[in-house]
Amino acid sequence: MTQPVDLLINARWIIPIEPANIVLEHHSVAVRQGRILAVMPQHEANGQFAAARTVDLPDHVLIPGLVNLHGHSAMSLMRGIADDLPLMRWLQEAIWPTEARHVTRHFVHDGTLLAAAEMLRGGITTCNEMYFYPDAAAEAFERAGMRAVVGITVLDFPTPFASDADDYLRKGLAARDQWRRHPRISFSLAPHAPYTVADANLQRVASLAAELDTIIHIHVHETAGEVHDSLAQYGVRPIARLAALGLLGHNVVAVHAVHLDDSDIELLRKHGCSIAHCPSSNMKLASGAAPVMRALEAGIPVGLGTDGAASNNRLDLFQEMRHASLLAKVISGDATAIPAHTALHMATLAGAQALGLSDRIGSIEVGKEADLCAVALDALETRPCFDPASHLVYVAGREHVSHVWVGGEIRMNKGALMLQFNDTDLLGLAAMWQTKLSN
Amino acid sequence: MTQPVDLLINARWIIPIEPANIVLEHHSVAVRQGRILAVMPQHEANGQFAAARTVDLPDHVLIPGLVNLHGHSAMSLMRGIADDLPLMRWLQEAIWPTEARHVTRHFVHDGTLLAAAEMLRGGITTCNEMYFYPDAAAEAFERAGMRAVVGITVLDFPTPFASDADDYLRKGLAARDQWRRHPRISFSLAPHAPYTVADANLQRVASLAAELDTIIHIHVHETAGEVHDSLAQYGVRPIARLAALGLLGHNVVAVHAVHLDDSDIELLRKHGCSIAHCPSSNMKLASGAAPVMRALEAGIPVGLGTDGAASNNRLDLFQEMRHASLLAKVISGDATAIPAHTALHMATLAGAQALGLSDRIGSIEVGKEADLCAVALDALETRPCFDPASHLVYVAGREHVSHVWVGGEIRMNKGALMLQFNDTDLLGLAAMWQTKLSN
Repeated sequence: MTQPVDLLINARWIIPIEPANIVLEHHSVAVRQGRILAVMPQHEANGQFAAARTVDLPDHVLIPGLVNLHGHSAMSLMRGIADDLPLMRWLQEAIWPTEARHVTRHFVHDGTLLAAAEMLRGGITTCNEMYFYPDAAAEAFERAGMRAVVGITVLDFPTPFASDADDYLRKGLAARDQWRRHPRISFSLAPHAPYTVADANLQRVASLAAELDTIIHIHVHETAGEVHDSLAQYGVRPIARLAALGLLGHNVVAVHAVHLDDSDIELLRKHGCSIAHCPSSNMKLASGAAPVMRALEAGIPVGLGTDGAASNNRLDLFQEMRHASLLAKVISGDATAIPAHTALHMATLAGAQALGLSDRIGSIEVGKEADLCAVALDALETRPCFDPASHLVYVAGREHVSHVWVGGEIRMNKGALMLQFNDTDLLGLAAMWQTKLSN
Repeated sequence: MTQPVDLLINARWIIPIEPANIVLEHHSVAVRQGRILAVMPQHEANGQFAAARTVDLPDHVLIPGLVNLHGHSAMSLMRGIADDLPLMRWLQEAIWPTEARHVTRHFVHDGTLLAAAEMLRGGITTCNEMYFYPDAAAEAFERAGMRAVVGITVLDFPTPFASDADDYLRKGLAARDQWRRHPRISFSLAPHAPYTVADANLQRVASLAAELDTIIHIHVHETAGEVHDSLAQYGVRPIARLAALGLLGHNVVAVHAVHLDDSDIELLRKHGCSIAHCPSSNMKLASGAAPVMRALEAGIPVGLGTDGAASNNRLDLFQEMRHASLLAKVISGDATAIPAHTALHMATLAGAQALGLSDRIGSIEVGKEADLCAVALDALETRPCFDPASHLVYVAGREHVSHVWVGGEIRMNKGALMLQFNDTDLLGLAAMWQTKLSN
């Protein structure tokens, strides 16, 4: 008797991430009701299952959908608006004035939609998001059929979205209420950074997060200046201040974490925090090289983030895997630093762990949701291929992603997005916003 | 009266490289007999010229064909054969044994053909090459219709190709004689490195290069260990030793040049040497971060190289532009380091200057040969576009290259290679060699 399944994927290689550091050859993944039912050799699977749809991937490697652990998706509309500038000039002369003039609910919806399409094309199935108008971002991720943890951004100062911390929280929590029990969209609390949120508001976020059982998504120690200023203003480093305020915990995603001394790493470790490493953004803004090896050695989960398209300028986790590995190697002088399987783990399961989603996504294991990404290794520039894991990090790019599934539903098929809207619509939105922003 | 031309390209943007730092909008390039006849506004050009072929590039940026200032092309057949290893283990356990067993004339021909196709697809029209069997490499570059400066490699020790320095030179110079007066293929002298070639042979190379008026292509100061060992063995740093031997001159392309002190930079500057910066290879092998900013400030021409596909693992100058910029920024702590136009100059005109070819290629100027590369900026992930120069470095990838011309002849058209052989033939060669190397 064959067992009916919705989808059977026969792949040349599968890198399940868990078990770690292995490559399965000529295996299949069976999917039923959006979940992974089996991972087994092809010859067994094809006798055992009767699939409504079978996808053969003879030159492909199948990996879990990638988890982008830090994004400001709507900033895709500001892609390349100002480059080759120091962080503070970039923010003060370009980004903040543009945001003040242009960021609306529509901007966030359209920019997030563009970013979601870009991310799905590149194999990213989950985004840990932080920006304004979280309801508009959630709507865009929903339309794109992507998984997202949408941040309820909290700032002390006013923006077009909200007037003060109370207002950010009130609006954000109202959005969260609207989206409760959505299978793919959840919300986090996202105090922007220690230097933009006062003690009382950070404490309020900490207790709200405990009460609501949410992730806390926060930028920390991005620049040396941030640490220096905190020492001058508070007498302690930012991470120590967060610890004293009771904000650090297993639910904290510490973004950037570039300038860490031993005491910072010990605090993050002790409290079970995770790190969202954003190597391209840190390099481009000259923020520094995060001590990822030391964090990993301390047992801190380190995932990968693209940051926003205004500081990267690609929402491309293949690039982030490569940069995480290459930057760690050149900084440490150790060519074995962050080998390919480690980079793949960071871009998948580590991100899922940081988001508290590792029981549902992040690896190709029975019982998990079928968030999957297939990469074709049949192009000239990917041949020969002696090791598909190494090829994913050092050879392939997002342009080689051929198929993407989210919860078993197909989002990209043979290189073409399968969304509710088409590429032409999105290009039209991008053109409209470019005209607006250029005026 | 309209003037007949072979080709008229109407581009949304043209970045000619010379004049520096400019972007021409809605301009055309007219090509006759392989050379650039005019660069002018589209509305003027289309009235003035009657073109045998007109190519409209409404969403594209046209740049000079990229110059790969350091390659070991045939190593494409060893792409990814050993990664995440320190340099010496990588060489001694993986690369050298594989080369000893497998490198033949056929290996070099087939590997160079695969690499040439990969490079052309990514907009690279010229390669400064160093490997074995230079006649086989030249034949492959000729078949691919690419421009190349093929190195006559010189080593003191035997390989399957030659027994000693005399033998390398004899065989290499014989190949050079066969290819004299070829319009696209020329030869250089390529002593492998100061630590693999003895004084007498380096002196012989220096005088031969002067006599034959050729480039000298040599690895120098790639690792700290190389400098350390030279101090122990010779009492001087490798570059000082080369200077004392009379090898340094305006015709020298110093590859890697990672570990440079002020005296090294002064010697390179004084003698008019160029540097081939290979950031991806230097990062991946953990060799270090070359002091590119200091070299540029000293007025040393710095071009970009991919190195071989066993240590990169992409023959992709878009990646090298991005890495040159990002690495310089993070190392210097200065986000303005190597801005986009500088990276573009390095990947084009600086490489041409280093090879003594800047009167013929490297920029889109009247009288130069029409080595051209068009990049389509119409995909979701490249939108919006506020600045095409910044997009080429920070957003676009080689996958966005749509058209490539070498000397006015089309090599890629709308994303498809237009060569004497097809992709299937090349994939077959790659598969055959993968099987051989795996046994």
